[in-house]
Amino acid sequence: MTQRKKVSEAVIKRLPRYYRHLSQLLEGNIDRISSNELASRMHITASQVRQDLNNFGGFGQQGYGYNVKMLHAEIGNILGLGQELSCVLIGAGNLGHAVANYANFERRGFKIKGIFDNNPAIIDTKINGLTVQTVDDLIPFIQKNQIKIAMLTIPAVSVKELIDDIIEAGIKGIWNFSYLDMEVPADVALVNVHLSDSLMTLAYKLNEIEYLKKNQ
Amino acid sequence: MTQRKKVSEAVIKRLPRYYRHLSQLLEGNIDRISSNELASRMHITASQVRQDLNNFGGFGQQGYGYNVKMLHAEIGNILGLGQELSCVLIGAGNLGHAVANYANFERRGFKIKGIFDNNPAIIDTKINGLTVQTVDDLIPFIQKNQIKIAMLTIPAVSVKELIDDIIEAGIKGIWNFSYLDMEVPADVALVNVHLSDSLMTLAYKLNEIEYLKKNQ
Repeated sequence: MTQRKKVSEAVIKRLPRYYRHLSQLLEGNIDRISSNELASRMHITASQVRQDLNNFGGFGQQGYGYNVKMLHAEIGNILGLGQELSCVLIGAGNLGHAVANYANFERRGFKIKGIFDNNPAIIDTKINGLTVQTVDDLIPFIQKNQIKIAMLTIPAVSVKELIDDIIEAGIKGIWNFSYLDMEVPADVALVNVHLSDSLMTLAYKLNEIEYLKKNQ
Repeated sequence: MTQRKKVSEAVIKRLPRYYRHLSQLLEGNIDRISSNELASRMHITASQVRQDLNNFGGFGQQGYGYNVKMLHAEIGNILGLGQELSCVLIGAGNLGHAVANYANFERRGFKIKGIFDNNPAIIDTKINGLTVQTVDDLIPFIQKNQIKIAMLTIPAVSVKELIDDIIEAGIKGIWNFSYLDMEVPADVALVNVHLSDSLMTLAYKLNEIEYLKKNQ
């Protein structure tokens, strides 16, 4: 990576979408694309595309557009997708199963090395080839295997209990599905997926559309 | 709702978090809270709290703070949570199971009335008390039961096939887990949960922290 500046959360959130669309273009053997075409696929404006990509040094060429393969590789690089990222999955309930079986993650470099739960009925069962281990073995496992990412598909109360310990053990990235708005040290990355919040956002939008219809 | 103006996507996304924190305060029998305290719980600034809530007409009182019960009720109202929202869940794989078993959604008013899949091995099995039905019966079911929300836990290709039909059948809100960046009519609400994008965002943040450490 030649240059890097602090970019906004909104841009960061769009990068994976660029990457996804560029992957699809590559699969379709499309060599180059204009900012207009790319914007139209993504339902954003062409100037948004140009602005976003300028954050990372451009990549586009006037009159030619973007070289799909190069842009795909560059964004993958920016996203840090070239390397293997070792993960533990904590929580082997329904959501844990869904995450563990999600082949797409592994394609992006996220490799689940261990699955942990505290439910005796689940411990020692197999998910996607991995045996579910007891949470008692979590910390030594993280240390021994130098795991960097923890995927948390357990309730907030359980997260509270173990969050400090897993960070101390070496976890640098947390993908959190619990309803805990946690604070983590500055050198730890945190991304929350709050499904219930997302569903409430949908309710809000539904409500707004209803309201606008009645008051137009 | 007495007043309503177009609010930004970022504010809309924070509303469910306010609601969640206020629910927790209510459960803890806390009657009132200052914008400072609320902000600190949510890891945002007090001025952000005041700005956000001003979008909806304030609710706070100088020197007193917010009445927790009232604010909770108002935000619930803004989010449209008072009513029952009838849903169909399309896709009964791992993720579908996780969604169907998520009690939190029902507490918020989201009631799954039917579950659909096209896999013969899953059809007629039961999830959380509901029998999985064939996708062939989906459209008449939506129409007959006046379902307003579709939860899509199926692959993008399958979403493409049925999206127009379910909207024509009366769906007004879509909670989409597939990797399809779809376009919907203006009177249909769409909220995407792109898990793989979210995980790539985590990779980006990890990478950024690494980079800053090396270059400080």
